[in-house]
Amino acid sequence: MTTTKPSGLAGIVAGETAICTVGHEGNSLNYRGYSVSDLAEHGTFEETAYLLIYGKLPTKTELKQYQDQLKALRGLPQNLKAMLEQIPASAHPMDVLRTGCSALGTLETEGSEHSQINIANRLMACFASMLFYWYHFSKSGRRIETQTEDASIASHFLHLLHGSVPEPIFASALDASLVLYAEHEFNASTFTARVVASTLSDFYSAITAAIGALRGPLHGGANEAAMELIESFHSADQAESGLLDLLAKKQLIMGFGHRVYKTSDPRSQVIKNWSRKLSEKNKNMSLFEISERIESIMWREKKLFPNLDFYSASAYHHLNIPTNMFTPIFVIARTSGWAAHIIEQRANNKLIRPGADYTGPAPRDWLPLDKR
Amino acid sequence: MTTTKPSGLAGIVAGETAICTVGHEGNSLNYRGYSVSDLAEHGTFEETAYLLIYGKLPTKTELKQYQDQLKALRGLPQNLKAMLEQIPASAHPMDVLRTGCSALGTLETEGSEHSQINIANRLMACFASMLFYWYHFSKSGRRIETQTEDASIASHFLHLLHGSVPEPIFASALDASLVLYAEHEFNASTFTARVVASTLSDFYSAITAAIGALRGPLHGGANEAAMELIESFHSADQAESGLLDLLAKKQLIMGFGHRVYKTSDPRSQVIKNWSRKLSEKNKNMSLFEISERIESIMWREKKLFPNLDFYSASAYHHLNIPTNMFTPIFVIARTSGWAAHIIEQRANNKLIRPGADYTGPAPRDWLPLDKR
Repeated sequence: MTTTKPSGLAGIVAGETAICTVGHEGNSLNYRGYSVSDLAEHGTFEETAYLLIYGKLPTKTELKQYQDQLKALRGLPQNLKAMLEQIPASAHPMDVLRTGCSALGTLETEGSEHSQINIANRLMACFASMLFYWYHFSKSGRRIETQTEDASIASHFLHLLHGSVPEPIFASALDASLVLYAEHEFNASTFTARVVASTLSDFYSAITAAIGALRGPLHGGANEAAMELIESFHSADQAESGLLDLLAKKQLIMGFGHRVYKTSDPRSQVIKNWSRKLSEKNKNMSLFEISERIESIMWREKKLFPNLDFYSASAYHHLNIPTNMFTPIFVIARTSGWAAHIIEQRANNKLIRPGADYTGPAPRDWLPLDKR
Repeated sequence: MTTTKPSGLAGIVAGETAICTVGHEGNSLNYRGYSVSDLAEHGTFEETAYLLIYGKLPTKTELKQYQDQLKALRGLPQNLKAMLEQIPASAHPMDVLRTGCSALGTLETEGSEHSQINIANRLMACFASMLFYWYHFSKSGRRIETQTEDASIASHFLHLLHGSVPEPIFASALDASLVLYAEHEFNASTFTARVVASTLSDFYSAITAAIGALRGPLHGGANEAAMELIESFHSADQAESGLLDLLAKKQLIMGFGHRVYKTSDPRSQVIKNWSRKLSEKNKNMSLFEISERIESIMWREKKLFPNLDFYSASAYHHLNIPTNMFTPIFVIARTSGWAAHIIEQRANNKLIRPGADYTGPAPRDWLPLDKR
């Protein structure tokens, strides 16, 4: 048996997509042709989700209708609440969303009453409801009302977390972050969703599977790992010496580099600007300075640039979001991209079933129990 | 935008495996070098699961210990029971298993207390418990005891379903079927599990995702679709004319052909023998005769051979298993293979992240809301 370095399908084209380009013009990221920077600066997450799922930017009327529709989908069925109440406070929030998504599929099963697009919207609208219903109940036994009047998914998230309508700057920061995390071509979780969809399984199965993939520290979990690193230092100078120690020990530093981008991540500058703005608003530049120092050392020592996850960590921290809620935000955002890919996969489907190189034992005769 | 026929990664090597060969010597299937026919004829599912997960056939002592260990893992935590009680009788059993698996991950989270191998064994041992706890509670409000003294997973399954210890021939038939369904290289659900594992996500995420993939009618759902076809006919002659009608309408007939096998499926003869034996035992040859007629017409008209799913349908029917429980059996069996692949993926991991060909709009300028 030989063991070679696995390739992870790097550079292998697994299919076609009209949804997104990653790195086509150097370090660009476009959703259906529009640059992610334009979307994050001028648009909202709701516009972005509409663009991804329906294939075009909404008109003013369409956007208003879409916002109202999403708003109306925040409530949770009683059975789902009862299930969430059984999940202990010690659970990982990603496991809560994975379970909540799967459970909703037993209550609002895909079919004529619940179309694929309706389910996509429902999940984006109510993931925060699931998360914070469980969060508050498991911590304090409090059963919160999840149907709020917030104008956006970002505002709804912060409202349920903190119990009050957020200041506009905080909602805008989270909204921009949702735009940045919405879509990224055939990343591992999206590819997972497409493989599941390719068996003609239901929509919830594909999204549940994608949540499971996103949970891993090599994928969505990276921003949580980045936060842990940043938080472990108390000053920029200490970060410098500590990071050099870690690099000397060849430890993997999360939040840097990218499988597809080679020179920079186009989303990083956008979230870095938000991280600075929120630090100034909160009058506490410490995390930001530590982050900038880590960035400069990673470039100096390893020629690695920060990806979206790195400055998302300090930005979320300044929004007073617990670290283990970072990846769930990614879920809410990426559900828009996952949904677009599931719909696209279904429209021109073929079962995704690769082959493998065998490295195990040659054919051998049966060995009866008493001969072993 | 051009649309070509997607390839579904057919013929693309996505990695190495030492677990299984499919079709290496014509129409063979070997688990770690042992032919599936030998395993199904001379071995048990517990031996097969041990072989797949631990990498070798168990000795007599190891097998006894393993059987005892699996037996002890049939009970369900109270929180999980309470969650299962919230799932309506109308739910698809696959959605119940997907949700139950994910939920167990919030209660018995992977870590030092629950290792990957322990979780694999736990899930194989208690999937039937989840399924039938929900089944009986949702149908009649009855809370069954899932911890039984049955010697095998197959016997436990039939016991919980029917409320009594099954006759040995029935348990043996289901046991053989579990062996046949245990493992099949990089099929869509196993590949899903490996993609999820490649992000370094947890064991439950990978299995939950795999269940979602298996649920699709192009994968695990095929035996249910085969049953619906067979049941729609009342005699072999009627099957012949009805099937010719369906073929004339170019309808896809489930349970025939295979992406990898080109001349026959080595598992089909084994399960066909069981289907005949069970038909004789139950003194009712009708379904078997209909199935044989369908087989001969599919060969005559389309040169397609039955795969494992086709005769599994009538075999399961003769075990008095409801049709929508067919794919859950597949889950219990394949968990052994999924587990082996997750363990293997983790041992030499690289993130699985393919590329895509872009067919969407070229880069375009931002379009403000009032210009749309």
